[in-house]
Amino acid sequence: MAFLPSWRPGPTRDAVASFLDEALALPPEQRVAVLDNDGTLWCERPGYIQYEFLVRTLHQAVEHDPGLAGRAEYRALLDGDHAALGELGLQRVALALLELCAGWTPDEFTGRARDFVYSEKHPERGVPYPKLVYQPMQELLEALRAHGFAVFIVTGGGTEFVRAVSRDLYGVAPDDVVGTLVEYHFEERGEGPALVRTAQALGEVNEGRAKVEHIQTQLGRRPIFAAGNSAGDREMLEYAHAAGSPSLALLIDHDDGEREYAYASAGVTTTDTEPIVDIGRREGWTVVSMRDDWATVFPP
Amino acid sequence: MAFLPSWRPGPTRDAVASFLDEALALPPEQRVAVLDNDGTLWCERPGYIQYEFLVRTLHQAVEHDPGLAGRAEYRALLDGDHAALGELGLQRVALALLELCAGWTPDEFTGRARDFVYSEKHPERGVPYPKLVYQPMQELLEALRAHGFAVFIVTGGGTEFVRAVSRDLYGVAPDDVVGTLVEYHFEERGEGPALVRTAQALGEVNEGRAKVEHIQTQLGRRPIFAAGNSAGDREMLEYAHAAGSPSLALLIDHDDGEREYAYASAGVTTTDTEPIVDIGRREGWTVVSMRDDWATVFPP
Repeated sequence: MAFLPSWRPGPTRDAVASFLDEALALPPEQRVAVLDNDGTLWCERPGYIQYEFLVRTLHQAVEHDPGLAGRAEYRALLDGDHAALGELGLQRVALALLELCAGWTPDEFTGRARDFVYSEKHPERGVPYPKLVYQPMQELLEALRAHGFAVFIVTGGGTEFVRAVSRDLYGVAPDDVVGTLVEYHFEERGEGPALVRTAQALGEVNEGRAKVEHIQTQLGRRPIFAAGNSAGDREMLEYAHAAGSPSLALLIDHDDGEREYAYASAGVTTTDTEPIVDIGRREGWTVVSMRDDWATVFPP
Repeated sequence: MAFLPSWRPGPTRDAVASFLDEALALPPEQRVAVLDNDGTLWCERPGYIQYEFLVRTLHQAVEHDPGLAGRAEYRALLDGDHAALGELGLQRVALALLELCAGWTPDEFTGRARDFVYSEKHPERGVPYPKLVYQPMQELLEALRAHGFAVFIVTGGGTEFVRAVSRDLYGVAPDDVVGTLVEYHFEERGEGPALVRTAQALGEVNEGRAKVEHIQTQLGRRPIFAAGNSAGDREMLEYAHAAGSPSLALLIDHDDGEREYAYASAGVTTTDTEPIVDIGRREGWTVVSMRDDWATVFPP
């Protein structure tokens, strides 16, 4: 098969090819790649796919307990009120999601998340969510592995949601996903020991400098390759880029309003106001223009 | 090569062999093994090897700052005062270790830990620490991998200490070690971004039910095989044993005072008073007698 067939020839694809070739000279244990998920491996617009899952879970919960609809976070989600959601903030809304899923076992959560991803359709594009994985990034994951890289997903989203589909969508095992964690509680039940989700987040939301800190705590390996697309990926991209030579920081620029969505990075927990693409160009990262560098965006 | 050559023929080796054969019928992603480290993969007597590392680090710190010797935790360690250490408690002493290493980068910590493990000798046996890995468990790790298992170490010790040597000693990558975590801080330094250790533990000590909770948060996979030797491994062994069929909970009984040490399990954070070997026999775990089941204990 051709090398990165969905990538157009040019300086971006050449930079990736050179990096992969140079990495072959390193010991295999140094070939470590980390990739953000939302907006880097699959589409994050008009809303995060995990948010859509939250909304469906909320609708189901409200059917059983209509009183839930009175709570501000749930009201805003049910109404699709983006202004109210923005005011409440990602963290508070995320904590409300945790409460909806408290008491579930890992298998229950995984089953519901998979059911959602494989049975629902994207609200604007009308295709199942697995069809919103970027074909060029799939090829890049394969190329990284073919060059002996250990590939990890480092997501701001919930670890368990991404784990539920990471093996099928990306070939990444559940233990190779680093994200925002929830606490579990171990219980002795009549039928044996069981683990259930609590409503407590475990540690910080996995964005910004926390991504680098969690790469160390959860993986203990320094990446020489990072891919991201938003202000929340800045520190992770800096960290990989500074790892020495060879190293590559790959920033996806969402500049293709026709085939995907055109938007500048929106910081999540960061206070940066400079667009991440401008930062990337100044820092010497490799910026991927979805419009110019990708011949294909989504799988056929 | 023969199957588990350092294990004597008999019911214990047969139970391991049957389990491995039956596991071949499972999808590879379900073949997940977790193993405790201290007392399960290598010797933990007369003290944890990581404790010896702490003491050496402390001696070095006191050389630079003699005032440190006045602190209760450090005084007890310098004097080898086990009664005082017991009164202070493992957690308080462990936190004191964290303070000694605050400000170190991951590479500094790894370098010092490796230097210790490879250059120091066991205080009673006079051999380097890598010679205190149990030969039969090395063979078991190889057999698990040969049967398609993903192998993880789940230790009560510090994650970073075990990671520093896990690849060399056990063939286990740093990201496949789950232990007690320390927080890191991401800093922008003149020479680029850097990560440094803080003096804060991250989450709970990885013992007892926390081992099961952390297997879920850090790995997101349910083990069907667990190996341990102490009361702090009880819940992890129960959890693996209850995973269905096939599953195997392997408990190492330190009953060989001639070739290793003879001692009953000492709980660390648990309040169980029943010996773990009695619990294991009652629960139907596979109990390994070091004296009877192992032809060889340490590598030649």
